[in-house]
Order: sequence, then structure tokens, then C-alpha cells
Amino acid sequence: MSDPLAIYKRLQKNFLKDVSCQKNLSLISECVDASLSQLASLEKKTLKSLVPEKNYFEFNKGVKASRAVNYALFDSDFSQWQNFCKAIEDKTVNTLTPDIITSTIYSAAMSFCCFVDLTKDGDQKTPGTFFEYLIGHLFSRHLGVTPTDKLPVFNLDMESTTLPTDFVFNLGKDKPKFHLPVKTSTRERVIQVWAHQRVLDGVYGTGRFLGTPVILAETKTDKRKKEVTEICLPDQWRIYQMHISQLKRIYYLDVPASYDKLNDVFPPLSVKSFGHFFFELDDLIS
Amino acid sequence: MSDPLAIYKRLQKNFLKDVSCQKNLSLISECVDASLSQLASLEKKTLKSLVPEKNYFEFNKGVKASRAVNYALFDSDFSQWQNFCKAIEDKTVNTLTPDIITSTIYSAAMSFCCFVDLTKDGDQKTPGTFFEYLIGHLFSRHLGVTPTDKLPVFNLDMESTTLPTDFVFNLGKDKPKFHLPVKTSTRERVIQVWAHQRVLDGVYGTGRFLGTPVILAETKTDKRKKEVTEICLPDQWRIYQMHISQLKRIYYLDVPASYDKLNDVFPPLSVKSFGHFFFELDDLIS
Repeated sequence: MSDPLAIYKRLQKNFLKDVSCQKNLSLISECVDASLSQLASLEKKTLKSLVPEKNYFEFNKGVKASRAVNYALFDSDFSQWQNFCKAIEDKTVNTLTPDIITSTIYSAAMSFCCFVDLTKDGDQKTPGTFFEYLIGHLFSRHLGVTPTDKLPVFNLDMESTTLPTDFVFNLGKDKPKFHLPVKTSTRERVIQVWAHQRVLDGVYGTGRFLGTPVILAETKTDKRKKEVTEICLPDQWRIYQMHISQLKRIYYLDVPASYDKLNDVFPPLSVKSFGHFFFELDDLIS
Repeated sequence: MSDPLAIYKRLQKNFLKDVSCQKNLSLISECVDASLSQLASLEKKTLKSLVPEKNYFEFNKGVKASRAVNYALFDSDFSQWQNFCKAIEDKTVNTLTPDIITSTIYSAAMSFCCFVDLTKDGDQKTPGTFFEYLIGHLFSRHLGVTPTDKLPVFNLDMESTTLPTDFVFNLGKDKPKFHLPVKTSTRERVIQVWAHQRVLDGVYGTGRFLGTPVILAETKTDKRKKEVTEICLPDQWRIYQMHISQLKRIYYLDVPASYDKLNDVFPPLSVKSFGHFFFELDDLIS
């Protein structure tokens, strides 16, 4: 059976050479295929979900347990991912639905993340980087633009310097640019996303960069009680959106219930499942 | 020999009951005394310092090594700390010098941090919390004000909510308030400090809260090469100070060389050793 981590290493070497290239998608697909194969024979244990209307399980392997996986979103059938890849290549993603796309990308990301959870000790970096590659590639491919991760900064009396950023996508002159932080979860570190957006607003002008973070999930499993909760700070998000900067969208693969409610209150904070991104590009940049 | 961690647990239980109380200072002193005793018999290994004009060592115990300790700042003599405590009780801290105070507090903090480094595996939380207690107590005692760690937020159509914060000290009506983040190091997470300051400026009015973070050090030891560097991002700090919010002071116990230089460039960013705090309160609040 192929080793997902060996394929991941090849992806790591190749990824930044040309983010949107077909080879990256092939390597991502190989990672997903190998991870699903590795998980196929493992025991799934249903967790006690404290999240209303969502059910979760974890993969078990010896004494190790994976992160919580959403039953309704996870599809272990690799052909779903293959269909999605074909739709990307044929430019027919718009014939799928946002829900199908969200579930497909969720399953791809979770397969590799769970494999790493069961294979390495406390490694958050490898799943996080894989998720960045996955979302970065899909975003880049959909926009037809290669991202950068640094921007020049102009200052009157400072040596010319560059600002390290998350992925940024420049759609060209007189068009908005995307600022794309990608995280497997945010917890209390989320304020960084608004703060980076504020820096971009300050340095390049408010409105020039559309902040559209993509986040996998906010679940947390109590290891002893085998209970799943979502760690959410909706009131703090509202304060950040009012007082630090304004994010355009917050995309999730597994949208937390309490953030979904932010769509209905002030300040405007549009939280959606990531599948919607593939249908609303015109709205975003108009 | 007393166990510093057992004393720390008592401190943890007592600390928030009354931050500035004498019992907290006594427990901190016991922690420092016990930690210095535990370290006294251990081998000190000189590290290769890549930081100009600073020399570092680490404590070794079996296969474990502590974080890097600055030779010029660390004094293993407990009587230095006792003298400082007596000066606090007698309100004669102003008879000491900023350098002596900085070195004393650095030694107290480092003694416990190094003990934990050598005793527990990858525990960053315990040293971080002890350092918060140490600085929180000294700040509170010097100001004569008990801090809070949450603030009420007023919103037109939001249920009344509170904003969790670092320590904030309210000097009373018509006086400024202090916003005191305390960190053993900041690295790339430092943007949070400016972002929290921006939230306070936004919610309560610019200038109402003086942001005065206190940070232990920014050293990093390469475990294989035994080399010490300082992880600093001075250009990013300048961008944050220009575009996110304005911090009043940034205090260090071991001031990184490249941040010290920020005192001389635009935007104004006042980086000082923490000992100076005890002599410039009138400047800060005027």
C-alpha cells in the first residue's frame, strides 16, 4: 500500500514551483487515495456529539485516535474525489452542487489529516500544510492565478522590504485581490486573520484585498469522555469584524453551528461552506 | 529540597483571589528559591551565541537542556531577589537601578522556567503562566491597582457581553488604563498584541488603554548545533505599529538587539528593559 507521507513529501517539493499545475493535483489525489486506503480497514468509533444536529466518529489504530470526523460530510469513496478532479480539468465544476463539492474536499482533507493523526505524534504542521496545498491549489486553479506569499511594502524612510502573507491572489490591474489564510482550525489564534487583513488595508488601501479565510473545522474531542464540541467565539468574531477589519467571507468545510448564525446579525459576517466559493466568484469581485 | 512545581500549584490556586497580595509575592519567592536550589548543582553549558555582545548558557540535566540563559543578566544568588522583595515591601524600589531590577526579575523568571524545561516535556504553558503571575503581581503592586482580565462591551443590538483580555489595570476615572500582555516570547504570534490593542482602541476609544506588553526574551537554541539566535521581525513590528495600533512601550527582560534599534526609527516604538517601568510611571500616564 502506498505511503501517504512519502507522496506528501513529493508534493511539498513540487508545490510552490507552480501552484496550479496538474502535477500538484495528481500528487494531492495520490495522497488522498493512499490515505483512504490506509483508513479503510480501521475501526470507526462513534463519538458523543455535543454539537446539535451533527454526528462524529474517530478512526482508531492501536492506542491512537484521529481527530473527529463528521459522518454527514465524510465520504470514503475515492471515486467522488476523482469525479471532482475530472470536473476541474473539464471546467465543469459548476455542474456539481456546493454541498457535493464541500463534502468532497472535506473528505480529501480529512483522509490525510486522520492518517497523520494515527501515524505521527502530535504533528499539527503536516496536516495543516497539506490543507494549505489542497485549498491553495483549488483556489488558484479556479481563479486562474498563481498566488504569492509576500508583498512589497513602500515606506518613506525604510529600506524596501516585503511583508510575508498568507496566499494572496492578484487578479490584475483595477481588480480586487484575494487574501487567503488557510487553517485546519482557528481557536484563539483567529484574531491574526483580522489583523493581517487590517495590515493589508492599511498598506494597500481598504477594499483592495478581499479576505476569504478557508478553515477545515472547529471540533475538539475530549479524549477521556470521547465527546466532541465546537470551540467557537462568535461574540469575539463580531467585535473583530467591527473593530479590526472586515473579512469578505469565512469559508468552512464543516461550518460550525454558532458561526453560521453570524450570517443573521450585525455586523455583516458571511460564513459559508467552501463549496459556495465555486459559484460566487462574480459576486465576490464585483 | 522543596519542589518548585508544588509551590507553583499553590500560587495558581491563590493568584487571582487578590493579585497584589503579599501571599502571592511569598509564593513567587518560594518558587524562585526552590528553583535556584534545584539548579545550583546542575552543569551549565556555554552556548555558541550568534547574538552580538550577548553570551548564553543552558542548564543540563541528563539528556534534557533548559532554554538559553543570558550570562550578564542571570544571577543565581537568591539574596538579590530578597533585596528586591524587601524594596517592594518598603516602597523603596526607586533606590535600585533599572538594570538591577531587570536582572533580578529576569533571574527569578528564568530560574523557574529552566527548572520546568528540565522537569517536564515540552511544557510551555507552566513557565508562561508563572511569568504572567510574576509580572502581573509586580505591575499590580507598583500601580496599587488590581487587574481584571475581561471588560464589558457595549453594543447596540448585541446581548451584553464581555471581552476576554490580557491583564488590564484601571487607574480610575479620567486616567489612562494599562493593557498588559505578558509573554515568555512572541515570535510570529506578536501580531495578536497589536490586534488586541486595536480592539480596545475601537471599543473604548483610542488612547484610553496604554499597551505595555512585557516579554521575557526572544532567544531560540538550535538543539543540534547548540547555537543561540534571537528570532526578531523588526520590519513587521514597524508595519504593525503604523497600521494596526500604537503600543506605548514594549518591555523586555532580555531586550533583543534588533528591537532595541526600533527606538531610533519611524514609527515611534519604545522598546525598553522592564526595570525602567518602575521609574517612568508618571511619564506613561501623563
